[in-house]
Amino acid sequence: MTHSDSIPSPSDGDPRGHSIELGRDRPIRLDCGASLESVTVAYQTYGALNAERSNAILICHALTGDQNVASPHPITGKPGWWNDLVGPGRVFDTDRFFLICSNVLGGCMGTTGPRDVNPATGEPWGLGFPVITIGDMVRVQARLLDALGIDQLFAVVGGSMGGMQVLEWCASFPERVFSAIPIATAPRHSAQNIAFNEVGRQAIVSDPDWCGGDYIRQGRTPKRGLAVARMAAHITYLSEPALHRKFGRNLQERDALSYGFEADFQVESYLRHQASTFVERFDANSYLYITRAVDYFDLAARHGGVLANAFQGIRTRFCVVSFSSDWLYPTRESRAIVHALNAVAANVSFVEVQSDKGHDAFLLDEPEFHATLTGFLNGAAQRRGLPPGRK
Amino acid sequence: MTHSDSIPSPSDGDPRGHSIELGRDRPIRLDCGASLESVTVAYQTYGALNAERSNAILICHALTGDQNVASPHPITGKPGWWNDLVGPGRVFDTDRFFLICSNVLGGCMGTTGPRDVNPATGEPWGLGFPVITIGDMVRVQARLLDALGIDQLFAVVGGSMGGMQVLEWCASFPERVFSAIPIATAPRHSAQNIAFNEVGRQAIVSDPDWCGGDYIRQGRTPKRGLAVARMAAHITYLSEPALHRKFGRNLQERDALSYGFEADFQVESYLRHQASTFVERFDANSYLYITRAVDYFDLAARHGGVLANAFQGIRTRFCVVSFSSDWLYPTRESRAIVHALNAVAANVSFVEVQSDKGHDAFLLDEPEFHATLTGFLNGAAQRRGLPPGRK
Repeated sequence: MTHSDSIPSPSDGDPRGHSIELGRDRPIRLDCGASLESVTVAYQTYGALNAERSNAILICHALTGDQNVASPHPITGKPGWWNDLVGPGRVFDTDRFFLICSNVLGGCMGTTGPRDVNPATGEPWGLGFPVITIGDMVRVQARLLDALGIDQLFAVVGGSMGGMQVLEWCASFPERVFSAIPIATAPRHSAQNIAFNEVGRQAIVSDPDWCGGDYIRQGRTPKRGLAVARMAAHITYLSEPALHRKFGRNLQERDALSYGFEADFQVESYLRHQASTFVERFDANSYLYITRAVDYFDLAARHGGVLANAFQGIRTRFCVVSFSSDWLYPTRESRAIVHALNAVAANVSFVEVQSDKGHDAFLLDEPEFHATLTGFLNGAAQRRGLPPGRK
Repeated sequence: MTHSDSIPSPSDGDPRGHSIELGRDRPIRLDCGASLESVTVAYQTYGALNAERSNAILICHALTGDQNVASPHPITGKPGWWNDLVGPGRVFDTDRFFLICSNVLGGCMGTTGPRDVNPATGEPWGLGFPVITIGDMVRVQARLLDALGIDQLFAVVGGSMGGMQVLEWCASFPERVFSAIPIATAPRHSAQNIAFNEVGRQAIVSDPDWCGGDYIRQGRTPKRGLAVARMAAHITYLSEPALHRKFGRNLQERDALSYGFEADFQVESYLRHQASTFVERFDANSYLYITRAVDYFDLAARHGGVLANAFQGIRTRFCVVSFSSDWLYPTRESRAIVHALNAVAANVSFVEVQSDKGHDAFLLDEPEFHATLTGFLNGAAQRRGLPPGRK
């Protein structure tokens, strides 16, 4: 269903999701200087908005995630990426909270991105799509909340790139965020992480099927380049101990080395499989735009080089979470966030969850992590005057 | 110049290097079961072999290194990769030692590899070249030493894949190695490192110019795939702190973000430059074969799963070196080597050099590392009855 800047009646995890068109009345200004006059935002909701409109939680997805937090993925059919955390009595208790997750600007799951048609030309945007930022993603989310009639979020939560959006929300719209949970994230993208993203982008643009970004019009798909990009990135989501425990040097369906270039080792087979499913569901140009947005993220740079300045006077309650084996967004990045928040006397709790699962731990079954979220949400709900959850 | 299993007269860093043909009289058996009846080995020497033939040091090069340890690279013109360590009075003192370094089997700098012509077909080997192992590389080196009339090496030394060759030498030919210096290496390739190698291989084979490995005959070169492989690998040679110190989020020849996909950041520009120079000097199929050899390396697996068994009764003197910020071959891998050597009461010293330069530290100006090498070589030379170096 499609709305036009009107308030939809939330339905619970509608498999088709919701869709809304924004910007017609007031174009959306982007950091690059361009404006978008029509942005479609695809989103999912779970639970119900209370009468006071005070129980909304915005969930921000990661680089290659999407709005299907707890709904089957429309292409792969797999359960939502936080499926186990959403439902009655769960971490994000749908009996208490109204959950919203929208596909980010530049994405490829229904929100306007480079795959969509540029109204000015009638052709797919391709590389004509403006380069976007985390700030642009968040401004579009804020417009969505305007349309939904939600002035203040009870919480905004997200991991990885989702955590960057959480930080951006707090810096740009502090009065609209009662509590914030940035998970496994960083206040700026490191040189090493820019380098890994650049490898992925070069893999894509090196694929002749990328066609200078014009592959849709030319009826081609740069699957090979996107697959290599995914493989390289996927390694950074795991940890050496997790890979060792899961695969070690085990051979894949064979008793001895093949002395060839087939996937002898399970870890090779696993990576190839991850890549082949990914390219079915993701758009190569979206990958370029979204990795660029992440590279550009540097909250301190916009505040005189001092991260704390981004949070001056903030009254939001923070819960910062990192994972001990995450080497993509290591704990020291979360500590930098905490230090900045402490410098402005913000209300902040910080947990480094012990886990050997690497960056992806925020998507996995990690009881300590889930207990941390539940505890923080309960405390914040009490402060906000929301009714308690089940015993 | 080319010899045929005859002893050449060593000349010092001849810019053309030396070349010898091996295997004609006695084919070289490979681990995969195949045999090579003619293998050309390209090598460099520095210094002079003494009358007792007791002062030879074999230097084993890393994945994409070559025999030009201290000679200008014939394609790039850059100084040798250990140029500063070789010469009169230097770490590898050419007044005292006779240094040898040969291009590995499967390489592309003069030693037989997939780029060369298969005598049976008259066409380039391509993927018809047998899959090789670190053991195969070392057996070819042993044949070279036979041809040079060197029964026992004073030392065998190498970093990274070179260090694997050092370990293989000690396991296969312990009586031929008086002392051994494995640097920044591991007794087996980890799952994470196999994964990184697989990304590189997939980048290459995904390049349409790879032509199923037959690109030479088809007059093409898979430069784009090889470039992506190099970029991904290059990140693993550095460290996050070194990248941060060197590049941080500095922009490349611009004052502000471009909001485009050019190399905005210095680290992107650096990676692209590294890749573009690499593809001029390296062969894509060699990259496939040599990374495979590294993945296959697992010294314990060939000795009943017990690494110490690889070194039973060894009398070689060891100096094991790691670097504190190396995450490709972290210190724990070197400790595993040391533990195995201790278990067989071998003579071993171990140094973890404090450095923030990552894996590549073994190629860089690291005074503590160089002092460690000098100290160990002096002690071993005294034991071996070699004359002392300069004061």
